[in-house]
Amino acid sequence: MKKKLIVGVDLGGTNLKIALLDNSFRIVHKHTHQTERFSSPQSLIGAIIGAVEYVIAHHCLKARDILGVGLGLPGPIDFDRGIVHFFPNIPGWKNVPLRNIIEKKTRMRVAVDNDANVMALAEYSLGAAKGSRNAVCLTLGTGVGGGLILDGKLYRGSSYAAGEIGHMPLNERGPSCNCGGRGCLESYIGNRRIMQQVRKAFGQDIPLEEISAMAYRGNKKAVALWDSVAGHLGVALASVVNLLNPDCIVIGGGVANAGRILFDRVADTVRCRAMPVHARAVRIVKAKLGSDAGMIGAGLLVKQ
Amino acid sequence: MKKKLIVGVDLGGTNLKIALLDNSFRIVHKHTHQTERFSSPQSLIGAIIGAVEYVIAHHCLKARDILGVGLGLPGPIDFDRGIVHFFPNIPGWKNVPLRNIIEKKTRMRVAVDNDANVMALAEYSLGAAKGSRNAVCLTLGTGVGGGLILDGKLYRGSSYAAGEIGHMPLNERGPSCNCGGRGCLESYIGNRRIMQQVRKAFGQDIPLEEISAMAYRGNKKAVALWDSVAGHLGVALASVVNLLNPDCIVIGGGVANAGRILFDRVADTVRCRAMPVHARAVRIVKAKLGSDAGMIGAGLLVKQ
Repeated sequence: MKKKLIVGVDLGGTNLKIALLDNSFRIVHKHTHQTERFSSPQSLIGAIIGAVEYVIAHHCLKARDILGVGLGLPGPIDFDRGIVHFFPNIPGWKNVPLRNIIEKKTRMRVAVDNDANVMALAEYSLGAAKGSRNAVCLTLGTGVGGGLILDGKLYRGSSYAAGEIGHMPLNERGPSCNCGGRGCLESYIGNRRIMQQVRKAFGQDIPLEEISAMAYRGNKKAVALWDSVAGHLGVALASVVNLLNPDCIVIGGGVANAGRILFDRVADTVRCRAMPVHARAVRIVKAKLGSDAGMIGAGLLVKQ
Repeated sequence: MKKKLIVGVDLGGTNLKIALLDNSFRIVHKHTHQTERFSSPQSLIGAIIGAVEYVIAHHCLKARDILGVGLGLPGPIDFDRGIVHFFPNIPGWKNVPLRNIIEKKTRMRVAVDNDANVMALAEYSLGAAKGSRNAVCLTLGTGVGGGLILDGKLYRGSSYAAGEIGHMPLNERGPSCNCGGRGCLESYIGNRRIMQQVRKAFGQDIPLEEISAMAYRGNKKAVALWDSVAGHLGVALASVVNLLNPDCIVIGGGVANAGRILFDRVADTVRCRAMPVHARAVRIVKAKLGSDAGMIGAGLLVKQ
């Protein structure tokens, strides 16, 4: 019997990425579409279905050759019912039963989950957390997203909303956060906040890659900036580590590209601030699958 | 066939409590011994075994009538290997293979775990968290202990050290903690710290029950003291809630006896500071099993 293939879809605020995956979740083919031009949920759903059908037809496959379609989505999802509650960065979505809609149209099995969970699944199954039992996966970008693998399984929480590492408070009287809380990690190290600090330190916008390069060349302001990011992140991770005692923390997303200058200091802070047993148990590593993680993780949903 | 009974042992720094439990984990008989007079691990182990044998003999039972013996212990435990790493408040213990020792002597099945996990098991199975899926259980006393039930199972972490809610930092530059960290919850609301605040506010030692009674009568200093405890605890719980999205938080231990004056303000803080979806999902309740939780939870270990 021919082994079935899987379609993995990674929907973001800017791009819709779609991959055909083989049985070992290797990418056979991938394709990127822009999402911004789809102004309504209907048109975006149409585009998703169109992209899925295109990738299948392009490989001369039929629906019966496909084990299923997985989607990683940028917002809170009811995993069991396959409903999108809303997307913070794509307007017009409210409690859309996306799984059912796509299942009906494509006559294939569909699974949906949020992007942080999907990234965690991918890094745990095939990436930087492979072989671990308890892994905490973070994405550092505009927001700070998190996914938790506990006792070898994705942990979703009671309303599918677990993993909000970006909204763990670092200071009781810290700055107000959009979430309603105060002193949240994201309000210290979200991309926007880092860019504010860049403007303050350098008097202009400079891309983060350049700030990293400057730091590696010894620029003191650039080093101080990464020290500050790593310090805040390290304290938040010390908290996570003391609570969950994971063996692996995977950090991905644009900010993670800073590399050693970020990771070394984060590891130092965790070593200093977490309890010794907990600090010894955990390794802190860079995500391995990069921008493919979303598509691969979405594919993994189908086999869950 | 006669249903087998279970022995549950709750070892603390002061008392050794032992219960004979029926098949539904109801206490058939319980007994308390003082532990302080046993100065070496050998003599304390002897006392535990003696107490187990006594309770069995006292009910005219034989080892074959007992399904097993569970022990809840006041320190870090390697659950799978049944080893006590050490006890912070009982000197002389270092990597003692307690499970094997007691199994050999009593010829009964033995399971050991730490007191916070055992309490969580009890409250989840038979107490205040019954019916929940994801429960966070805290004990407020000299230390702040925690146990996590996630997806209906006790979550122990990679080195059996998960649940250290007392060592989640509340402030990046908070006071130094014994654990090596800074600004840990325990350094704000551990019993010793609360008693320091009592002395500062009232110029003398006053028992916490009395401070609660004063607060209920409207004494402003007493109200302020509980406000402060509840505020710190609420922020820590907002952090736990955003990370784990539990449906239930159970709070036990001496400090929890403050009752409504503590719980109402903790719930308010969580409602204000946690993300709305997370805050709506969780109820915050007082532990139900009181000082029996340790024995019952220890018994539950046997059936796990």
